[in-house]
Parts: sequence; C-alpha cells; structure tokens
Amino acid sequence: MHQTGQIEIRVRYAEVDPMGLLHHSRYWVYFEMGRTELLRQAGVAYADLEKAGVFFVVAKVSGQFRAPARYDDLLTLTTQVTRLGAARIDHAYQLCRKSDGQLLASAQTTIACVDRQGKIIAIPDFVRGAEENKAES
Amino acid sequence: MHQTGQIEIRVRYAEVDPMGLLHHSRYWVYFEMGRTELLRQAGVAYADLEKAGVFFVVAKVSGQFRAPARYDDLLTLTTQVTRLGAARIDHAYQLCRKSDGQLLASAQTTIACVDRQGKIIAIPDFVRGAEENKAES
Amino acid sequence: MHQTGQIEIRVRYAEVDPMGLLHHSRYWVYFEMGRTELLRQAGVAYADLEKAGVFFVVAKVSGQFRAPARYDDLLTLTTQVTRLGAARIDHAYQLCRKSDGQLLASAQTTIACVDRQGKIIAIPDFVRGAEENKAES
Amino acid sequence: MHQTGQIEIRVRYAEVDPMGLLHHSRYWVYFEMGRTELLRQAGVAYADLEKAGVFFVVAKVSGQFRAPARYDDLLTLTTQVTRLGAARIDHAYQLCRKSDGQLLASAQTTIACVDRQGKIIAIPDFVRGAEENKAES
Repeated sequence: MHQTGQIEIRVRYAEVDPMGLLHHSRYWVYFEMGRTELLRQAGVAYADLEKAGVFFVVAKVSGQFRAPARYDDLLTLTTQVTRLGAARIDHAYQLCRKSDGQLLASAQTTIACVDRQGKIIAIPDFVRGAEENKAES
Repeated sequence: MHQTGQIEIRVRYAEVDPMGLLHHSRYWVYFEMGRTELLRQAGVAYADLEKAGVFFVVAKVSGQFRAPARYDDLLTLTTQVTRLGAARIDHAYQLCRKSDGQLLASAQTTIACVDRQGKIIAIPDFVRGAEENKAES
Repeated sequence: MHQTGQIEIRVRYAEVDPMGLLHHSRYWVYFEMGRTELLRQAGVAYADLEKAGVFFVVAKVSGQFRAPARYDDLLTLTTQVTRLGAARIDHAYQLCRKSDGQLLASAQTTIACVDRQGKIIAIPDFVRGAEENKAES
Repeated sequence: MHQTGQIEIRVRYAEVDPMGLLHHSRYWVYFEMGRTELLRQAGVAYADLEKAGVFFVVAKVSGQFRAPARYDDLLTLTTQVTRLGAARIDHAYQLCRKSDGQLLASAQTTIACVDRQGKIIAIPDFVRGAEENKAES
C-alpha cells in the first residue's frame, strides 16, 4: 500500500566500535537519512520545513539488531511510511547488506510534528499531500 | 528487586541538533554509559571483559522520548537490570533532568553475550555473580 | 599569565574506533567541553550567551596526537586562554591520561565571536571581563 | 604532481549543531572518508589493510574553517597526497559547497603507519605502490 524509498549507505570508520561493528546508536542516524530522502522523493526538503517553522521530533522507537554491519560495508536501507496520523507519522526500516541482501536490522519509529516551541501541531497539508501521493503511487 | 545505578551526564554541544535538542541517537550512548557504570559498581570493568574475550552486543532496544534534553542540561540516568538470562541481560533506563526531576526518556534494551567471533555464549560466572550480587543487595 | 581550567573526561565506548583508540574527531568535542567549563568557572554559561545572540564559531585548529587514549581511560584536560582579541579567542589544550600523567594530545584553536547571522562582532564586555578576570587571578 | 580524489558528501541532520552548522569535529570524519576513497581508487581497501595488520593513525592535523556548511548541503571534498614518506603520509583537503563551488574549509593531516601494537612501521610496498601510481598518473 505505501511506497518505499531506498538509499545506499557506506559504513564510516568513525561509526564503528572497538568490536569492529557499526555502533547501535548510529543506526538511528541512518534511519533519519532514510526519512529525509523519502520526503525529498515526494518533493519536500526537510531543511525547508524547518525554515517554515515545522519540525518533526522522534517520540518512540524500537529496533531489532540481527547481524552486525562492519566498517566499509555497503548497506541498503528501505524506509516506509506505515501510518500517517493527524500529527504523527510511523515509519518502518529494513537495513540490509548490499552484497548478499542479508537483513541486519529492522526498526520502527513514531515522529511527531511540532512548532518551534515544541507544541504538537497538525502535519501541514503540503507534507501530508506529499506523503499521501507516495502512499498511492 | 534489582539494584539500580545512577550517573549524572551533562549534555554536550556536539550532541545537540539544530532544534537545540539532544539528538535521539545520543541517548543510546548515555544508556551504554549507564550499563558500564552499573557493571563497574559490581566490580567488573567492561574493558577487562573484552580483553578476556567476552563481549556484549545490543540485540533489541525500545525507547520513549517524552520531553527534550537541551544543551548543557545536567541529567540523571537510572539504569536497572530487569532480567538476567543465561546469555542475555535486559536493562531499563530512566533519564531525568536533574534540576526538577522531569522524566525525559525511558528505554529498554536486551544485550547478548558473545565471544570474539560473535557467537552467543553463556554469561561468565564472575559477571553473573556481580549482577546477582547487585540484584540481592 | 592566563588561568587554566581542568576537567576530567572518561572515554566512552561509542567514541572509540576499531583500533580501540579514541577517534581523532572526538578530541575536538572534548576541547569544546574544556572551553565551556572555563567559561562557566568565570560565571558565564555558553547556553545563555547563545540566548543573548552571541555565538562562537571555530575558525582555525591544529592538533598533535602523541599517544592514544583508549576506552574507559580517565583523562585530564587542561584548557587555557592564550590570546584574547577584539573578536577572537585563542585556546591551548593538553589532554593527559590521569593515571600516569602521560601527555596524549595537545591542540590550539581560534574561535571567533559572531551574531546570529554569522557576522563577526566584538566579544561582549561581560564575556571579556570574565576572561580577563581569569587571566588576572 | 599528485593525483587528487573527489567525493560528494551530504551533510546529515545529526552532524549539525544548534547554530545549524556542521560541527567542526565532523570535518575530520569527512576527511577520513576522503582518504579511504583515495586509497580505494588505487585498488586498496583500508579494511583489508587492517586485516593484514597495517594501520594508519592520525599524528597531526590542522584546519581552517572559512564558511559554514549547513544541514542537507551537498559538499565536494578534494583529497590529495602531498607527501609520501617512509612511514608517514601527508594529505591536504579542500571542502567546497557543490552548488556554487564556495570553499568552506581546508585542512592538512599527517598519518603514520603502525602495526597492531601501535609501533611505527614502514608503509608496505603495495600501499606505497598504489600511492606512487596515483602520484604519477
């Protein structure tokens, strides 16, 4: 039902921990990149949203780490809108190793739309339209 | 039932995003610090564990972000062992603003004990003992 | 001639690279903490400066890395104002291992005072006063 | 005289500070990516070097930050080998905004070749050859 976006990410040296593994805190930076690019595909730059006083804050996350990503691995991140509420958007993520398609991690997030003061606001129509167009295509 | 450990953390400038808020990816770095200090209270240095070939990898996480932490805020992190399995440990976390005790975020993680090759192994007795001593005290 | 400030920092797991060493990019985060605490000693919170529309941006840095810092090492950072210009402040840093005093890294930075739009402005008197008081004490 | 390599980098949200600027500590992560890709162009994967017991540590850096990079900016990083010693390599970097070519930062680093124990060793011939081939082409 919902369109998905895909990006490629190469694991950086500074993101990898002493075990040689992508540190679990870094996955959330990747997932945020997935959301940004999904929005860009729909014609909206998140940087412009913030200039217009529309922000998204992360309210809730969950993640399952199945296999490690290592330094210099090329990864494929699939990001999907799974629910579009009045003021919240749920996303799901799947992060795979590109070379063999192995699933490394899956995750879910809920982001909330807020104004500059952090008050919850309705998602503006032009963002909602972009998201809905993606869902229909 | 289980002993809890508490540490204080001051939010660093480089950890804060353009909205002025502690980026959600950084909380996991703080929670890891909470685990490290809980282990140290029990007489075990995680750095020594790794030298002995015992590693912990993060298998599963969930987090709820209720109110933002800002640059230079002094925070209090409470870390608790909630389940001690054969090869896994569950922790729960509560991150509060120190000045007024406001709860900012809560989270749960499952870490798995692995050897240098990443194979799941039983948690060594000296770690288990340390954890159990904490649970009883 | 100028007063120095000292802080202790424990190296975090997520800051350490696959070689087991504090990644060279992290030192700059520590040095920034040194500047923040030096300012706080002088009675100025950098967070308040930004609310007042006064920002400091890093214009120039140099660093010499002599010996590695490792995960869980306790470090002592000494920060010193070495020059106080009209719109610029130079600092020097020495990062040592606490256990044996071994010098790990030294560095120098120049920060410039700017307004919200990034235009160079004179350092406000109350900051200058704070810095000069430190220099005299 | 020396071949240069170029990569594109998009500034991530989590890399940007409360002023909306790419934090100065992040530039070093980008420069490291530049070195990695320069080596890859020459047919050497840094990940393979480490497996072979050959490491490079950063000994000395300097950087000049001229204009800020902002969230979502697309940047062009040019990396160049400027000196190839027996055990050390010097690089120079220029980071520009892609849209208008504006120079944002320049930097210089010296990296030293070490073994697993951190002892300085001669740069292996196959790396030296790769670097020299680049210098000649």
